Amino acid sequence: ARPKVGYFYTGKSPLSLIQDYIKSIKVKDVKSVPVVVEESTPVYDAIVTLFLKDVGTIFVQDGGFLTGAVSRKDFLKIAIGNTDIYKVPVGIIMTRMPNIITTYDDEPVYNAAVKIIEHEVDSLPVVEPVVGKDGKQGYKVTGRLSKTNITRLFVKLGEG
Amino acid sequence: ARPKVGYFYTGKSPLSLIQDYIKSIKVKDVKSVPVVVEESTPVYDAIVTLFLKDVGTIFVQDGGFLTGAVSRKDFLKIAIGNTDIYKVPVGIIMTRMPNIITTYDDEPVYNAAVKIIEHEVDSLPVVEPVVGKDGKQGYKVTGRLSKTNITRLFVKLGEG
Repeated sequence: ARPKVGYFYTGKSPLSLIQDYIKSIKVKDVKSVPVVVEESTPVYDAIVTLFLKDVGTIFVQDGGFLTGAVSRKDFLKIAIGNTDIYKVPVGIIMTRMPNIITTYDDEPVYNAAVKIIEHEVDSLPVVEPVVGKDGKQGYKVTGRLSKTNITRLFVKLGEG
Repeated sequence: ARPKVGYFYTGKSPLSLIQDYIKSIKVKDVKSVPVVVEESTPVYDAIVTLFLKDVGTIFVQDGGFLTGAVSRKDFLKIAIGNTDIYKVPVGIIMTRMPNIITTYDDEPVYNAAVKIIEHEVDSLPVVEPVVGKDGKQGYKVTGRLSKTNITRLFVKLGEG
């Protein structure tokens, strides 16, 4: 039988060094500026904003609070349907809170990437909790974290 | 003055270990199945395929050769314009070869990620050179490599 006393190898493998390093990178280190429109913005104008800012997802706010998100995929679905994109406001077609997956400045990018893969979204709003005048709690959008940010980070990790 | 003789530190830093490891991963290790339509496919049918297969970019072939690519962004641009998406074939609106950035099985994912960032595309077709009956050279699509694959790889690198 094996003796119960002994020693453990505590040296770190290259892979565990990679894991430690990756988990030390925070969302605030790689996030981008968010693109936000109001709920009343017509779908067409929101699509134009999407192209002008060249982003994949637009976040929607009402009274300074995050209320929704619309992706390129959502817009495409609407654009080939019978919706009057010049009249219908983005607030009608968006995915509405609390069904938005969010991240925050001090979250490890690794955790945010797991959310992106698990929830099959392209981008997460980076948020901060805020309290409105009426005492209502909500989130303010301070950034966005997308698969593009993660791909850029991957390139940075690999470059000399 | 510093002596010209001396020694160099050859130990590898954690970051250079990460770089070596990242550069050892090949496109074939992480690629997905490609979604390909014919040039004659109506734009509407190509959009339906995009949704059913849940991909961000569709590749287009003619006679088994890669001839083009269309992204969600391209489709959205067309969908809000005056194009008859039921009649116009995808071959008219696609980005046509040689303006497609490609990758191949044995390319390091790192290099493919650099192409994605530098050329601002979401996805690359993974290709193999083929020669047609008439002796013409071209590419056959064997996969796709997208920002989603790279995000998944990032998660894999970070997980225990």
